[in-house]
Amino acid sequence: MKFELENSAEVKDKIRRLGAAILPIGAVEAHGPHLPLGTDNLLAARLADKLAERTDSFVLPTLPYGQVWSLRNFPGSINVSNEALIRLLADIGESLYQQGFRIFIMVNGHLGNAAALKEAARILYERVPALKVFYFFYPGTKEITAEVREASAAHGTYMHADEIETSYMLYLAGEYVDMSKAIDGAPHIPFDADFTPTPWEEMTASAVLGDATLATREKGERIIQRSLDVMAEMVLRAKKAL
Amino acid sequence: MKFELENSAEVKDKIRRLGAAILPIGAVEAHGPHLPLGTDNLLAARLADKLAERTDSFVLPTLPYGQVWSLRNFPGSINVSNEALIRLLADIGESLYQQGFRIFIMVNGHLGNAAALKEAARILYERVPALKVFYFFYPGTKEITAEVREASAAHGTYMHADEIETSYMLYLAGEYVDMSKAIDGAPHIPFDADFTPTPWEEMTASAVLGDATLATREKGERIIQRSLDVMAEMVLRAKKAL
Amino acid sequence: MKFELENSAEVKDKIRRLGAAILPIGAVEAHGPHLPLGTDNLLAARLADKLAERTDSFVLPTLPYGQVWSLRNFPGSINVSNEALIRLLADIGESLYQQGFRIFIMVNGHLGNAAALKEAARILYERVPALKVFYFFYPGTKEITAEVREASAAHGTYMHADEIETSYMLYLAGEYVDMSKAIDGAPHIPFDADFTPTPWEEMTASAVLGDATLATREKGERIIQRSLDVMAEMVLRAKKAL
Amino acid sequence: MKFELENSAEVKDKIRRLGAAILPIGAVEAHGPHLPLGTDNLLAARLADKLAERTDSFVLPTLPYGQVWSLRNFPGSINVSNEALIRLLADIGESLYQQGFRIFIMVNGHLGNAAALKEAARILYERVPALKVFYFFYPGTKEITAEVREASAAHGTYMHADEIETSYMLYLAGEYVDMSKAIDGAPHIPFDADFTPTPWEEMTASAVLGDATLATREKGERIIQRSLDVMAEMVLRAKKAL
Amino acid sequence: MKFELENSAEVKDKIRRLGAAILPIGAVEAHGPHLPLGTDNLLAARLADKLAERTDSFVLPTLPYGQVWSLRNFPGSINVSNEALIRLLADIGESLYQQGFRIFIMVNGHLGNAAALKEAARILYERVPALKVFYFFYPGTKEITAEVREASAAHGTYMHADEIETSYMLYLAGEYVDMSKAIDGAPHIPFDADFTPTPWEEMTASAVLGDATLATREKGERIIQRSLDVMAEMVLRAKKAL
Amino acid sequence: MKFELENSAEVKDKIRRLGAAILPIGAVEAHGPHLPLGTDNLLAARLADKLAERTDSFVLPTLPYGQVWSLRNFPGSINVSNEALIRLLADIGESLYQQGFRIFIMVNGHLGNAAALKEAARILYERVPALKVFYFFYPGTKEITAEVREASAAHGTYMHADEIETSYMLYLAGEYVDMSKAIDGAPHIPFDADFTPTPWEEMTASAVLGDATLATREKGERIIQRSLDVMAEMVLRAKKAL
Repeated sequence: MKFELENSAEVKDKIRRLGAAILPIGAVEAHGPHLPLGTDNLLAARLADKLAERTDSFVLPTLPYGQVWSLRNFPGSINVSNEALIRLLADIGESLYQQGFRIFIMVNGHLGNAAALKEAARILYERVPALKVFYFFYPGTKEITAEVREASAAHGTYMHADEIETSYMLYLAGEYVDMSKAIDGAPHIPFDADFTPTPWEEMTASAVLGDATLATREKGERIIQRSLDVMAEMVLRAKKAL
Repeated sequence: MKFELENSAEVKDKIRRLGAAILPIGAVEAHGPHLPLGTDNLLAARLADKLAERTDSFVLPTLPYGQVWSLRNFPGSINVSNEALIRLLADIGESLYQQGFRIFIMVNGHLGNAAALKEAARILYERVPALKVFYFFYPGTKEITAEVREASAAHGTYMHADEIETSYMLYLAGEYVDMSKAIDGAPHIPFDADFTPTPWEEMTASAVLGDATLATREKGERIIQRSLDVMAEMVLRAKKAL
Repeated sequence: MKFELENSAEVKDKIRRLGAAILPIGAVEAHGPHLPLGTDNLLAARLADKLAERTDSFVLPTLPYGQVWSLRNFPGSINVSNEALIRLLADIGESLYQQGFRIFIMVNGHLGNAAALKEAARILYERVPALKVFYFFYPGTKEITAEVREASAAHGTYMHADEIETSYMLYLAGEYVDMSKAIDGAPHIPFDADFTPTPWEEMTASAVLGDATLATREKGERIIQRSLDVMAEMVLRAKKAL
Repeated sequence: MKFELENSAEVKDKIRRLGAAILPIGAVEAHGPHLPLGTDNLLAARLADKLAERTDSFVLPTLPYGQVWSLRNFPGSINVSNEALIRLLADIGESLYQQGFRIFIMVNGHLGNAAALKEAARILYERVPALKVFYFFYPGTKEITAEVREASAAHGTYMHADEIETSYMLYLAGEYVDMSKAIDGAPHIPFDADFTPTPWEEMTASAVLGDATLATREKGERIIQRSLDVMAEMVLRAKKAL
Repeated sequence: MKFELENSAEVKDKIRRLGAAILPIGAVEAHGPHLPLGTDNLLAARLADKLAERTDSFVLPTLPYGQVWSLRNFPGSINVSNEALIRLLADIGESLYQQGFRIFIMVNGHLGNAAALKEAARILYERVPALKVFYFFYPGTKEITAEVREASAAHGTYMHADEIETSYMLYLAGEYVDMSKAIDGAPHIPFDADFTPTPWEEMTASAVLGDATLATREKGERIIQRSLDVMAEMVLRAKKAL
Repeated sequence: MKFELENSAEVKDKIRRLGAAILPIGAVEAHGPHLPLGTDNLLAARLADKLAERTDSFVLPTLPYGQVWSLRNFPGSINVSNEALIRLLADIGESLYQQGFRIFIMVNGHLGNAAALKEAARILYERVPALKVFYFFYPGTKEITAEVREASAAHGTYMHADEIETSYMLYLAGEYVDMSKAIDGAPHIPFDADFTPTPWEEMTASAVLGDATLATREKGERIIQRSLDVMAEMVLRAKKAL
């Protein structure tokens, strides 16, 4: 399933047969003391592997650099611009289409990339209309997350290095988690954080936006499996419609 | 040494101490029947690891997409534009500088990226003059390669999936090479290929530009070690000069 | 409060005194049979007027063109790109700063503009860090809207020409609403609409995403007043902090 | 005639029938003590209304931000770049064409926009050749202006807040003029002002480039009516040629 | 005076002493049967030489490619975009400033370049405010041209390959004029040519916009000398002000 | 053969007959005490003339500004960006194609332009695939240069103002060489100059990278003639293939 490990002589038929390519995309970003900088890359890559198995698709090599505006001033974060990301993703998508792919699935492990992914998808909609493009950031997990979580969410839209994301890691890449360093981060989210540019150093020193100590592998598994169900259904429908 | 596996709480001091970050950059590109599409990524990543060990530097996650104009029409190649690449690399470099790095080393496994890397390095020279930027594509290997090679080179500047590159792979990532499929590709290089845009389908059907059957692990090791010597010396000098 | 009606000879002192400029931004976009194409412009402009009164700020002339990708194929919609919008907004913000303003408030009447506004705000954060930039799209209305609405929401994030938006219009610009033409639009939202580019002609013929017949002036007033409270508090805090 | 007040359900046929859309474009710019900052917007909007009546065309909402390089340092001016303006106008024109319009008329109230309008028109000429694009800045008024004016012109090409422009305002938007504050501005136009970038603070303190006290409603009416005749004839010819 | 013929070892002091660099800029463009395609380049270059003599300035090599939108479909015309031109000119200006020049004079032989030159000058005004930038297109010649011309002007703003421009050539580059082929071109200028993109094939088959047979060396000399007086005065004033 | 001296009335047939246009491109750049700043322009222009004679092609006016990053800080150098150059060259190529040319030959006298020329050629390959584009920098001269040169080369790839380039000048533009000022420049090329941005002031004070005193007209003639043979063969083959 690893596209990178195929060879050119044999890949052409496989592309025609599979039709779909999954691009994991993450970021290098501060994730507190208990999670590695590459958390979003690890999550995206492993989630992509599982989705590939379920849908008989290729997995492309992970794009490991993302838009990390909010946390860019935290130690270890590497930030790239939306502009660079959009161009690169549109180029990749167009090239995949030229190669014969008809479905391009971006499995995103970092919320900060969302705007770039959506814009790239729209650019591809104009350039190569016959390419179906998905951008996924744990779709279909709202209800199951509400069920699963013990601590209340720090924020309505994003979660970061908290109970939930740490649980994802415990399930998908547990060997990189050090739960002995997990903390209960109590972010002070400024009144206007959603309505004015707000670097996260104004709300947290640790980058842990919640109680990471509550994370478990089981919680992660339940949410991730639900998301996989949802993603797989969408991809399989798209494959049928080819 | 894997930057991605560090955590934010501890990485700051290490950045200050090490000072240097190595970015492996490759491509997804046709490499004949015996080598995988991700050959350039594998080479760049493993070479970066060795350079990191020698120079006590961080290795960043591999950037696995490159400018593959010449081979873009071969099965499995994914091509991105110079423009996208330049912006992304300049963003990464600037962000590394903000993080405290003072040396940024691009270890390039794909010759097609060379123009973009050089341009990105010059942009960084203006934006963050205190950041020393290297762009390496097997530097210092001209003489040793001439000594080592048995078949004559198909071209003065580039080699691709041939005796030399296959030897690199046998040394650095032998588990991905299938020598039973290695062929002696005899490219017909058009008269004017260096002076007019020439997609490689005009010169080869296999993308193997030479006699891959002559490749050995030992040849690869000799050249790669020489290149490592040269790179390490440059990086260590730069570190001393900090 | 209308900045446009000030004259140059007297405006300088007022800018210094007021410190804040409000830019209403909307779009020309299909809003069903009962609402005009300029609905988002009317809402943004009148909301801006009310916010200006509460916060003693200037109101700039309305920017009446927005990113209308989803509805661009509906009769009457005019679509401009994120790229054009971002540049224009960043230019306006920078110019306001040069004029002496220290707070720049974008009151947005069209959700499609949200990504462009956020990006423009971040660009201004780099270029003119001393300028506080807000981007508002009916902030703080989640709970009150849930209380007020009778029909369930068609979608978790957006509402369009439905019970809620029609109520806004009845309160803020009732003279432009023709309730005799209001319909109960029952959108068929495709399974994957949030995860792949989906023009709205795939989900609705009328562009009415809900039951517009349930709209009332009172509903609109309750939600809008709540939002005004929230916005005014943010702006007044920012003024105090100057 | 106000496009913005149409509704989507009925507008399609009207677009087909009328065929032409008029975009008023102005600026927020210092216009001396007797005229408001939005003078160019008011003039463009009202002139557009009159042209629409004469030619049975739609009027789009006014684009109220323009390129104000020369006066950008005067209190109240808001300056946007040619680049932003060109992109936005080209987007609007392309979208109008997609909507079924075949004639796009930019009625410009601010000379500083002229270069951007011309460039946008040429871009549209390539992208959508079947769209006829006009850019008007009081066309056909040279002779009548020479007849009408009492004071000699301060400059061969531009007039600003002077006898002529103030007369336009008295005719088109007299309720916003305060003739009691009108002055006789005696600009000192530097020797090389037309041949080197010259912000207007080098030539005037008031931004009044002439004797505004000589302005009358009648003068304005005579010139504006002439210009309307000329514009209407061009538009009607273009309509006939559809 | 030819900058190009200086050598690096000695030029530094001369730059400091002279302070001013003149860039002739023209175009390759159809100029009827009696004038060469390079007419605008020849005029710009020779005018620049004369201006250099009068003002003790350097002449840079001629930039021989210009924006030729209107005549691009005529045999022999080469058209480049405003965008390319603006960037190139801004780069040249910035580099001249780094070299020590404080006055940068663009002597333009082709009216189509005017918008690009003005924009480049404004960009330089921001980037290197201490560089005085002039853009000249036969300045100060309005009255003398009216006196000199026998045939009436075809258009208020531009002249092309007609009595006037041919006279310039007879004076400045007579060896390239073939008066035996000069014609009286009677352009049919469309009613709306100044207000909508109008390629010149709609108004003339010859590209001669007037009566070229009336051209004389003396007419050319009188106008050109006047223009030289005006340009020299501006440049010398600027030199004094350094 | 000078395209610039053709007239529009007759050029159309000649374009069809000749089919090929040669663009000399150079730079204004420091070339030591014995060679003029315009050396690369002179070389490119005269080489282009000779190639035109051999291949019956048109010569376009010389583009005299190039990318001079490495030497930009030397007295007299004028540097333009790759970006500006690429756009301009792509515009010129596209316009030539519209004019009826089917072969576009860039004869480059300055190595620093090479990346821009290659990129422009690739852009043209997409935009106007039927246009054959060459980019030549003394092709086919490796062996003959090795034979001819007395001093060893300072660098593997580039030569500058040294024995070789001075010999070119003695042959092609001897009247601009002052051999009495020729020196033996002994560059100190830093260890890492090929792998990190390295302005040439770090390696030479004179910009002479070799022993210019060894230059002779005969050496220049031998190499240039060889290169002409190689270029002419490529162009003539391309002409035959039309």
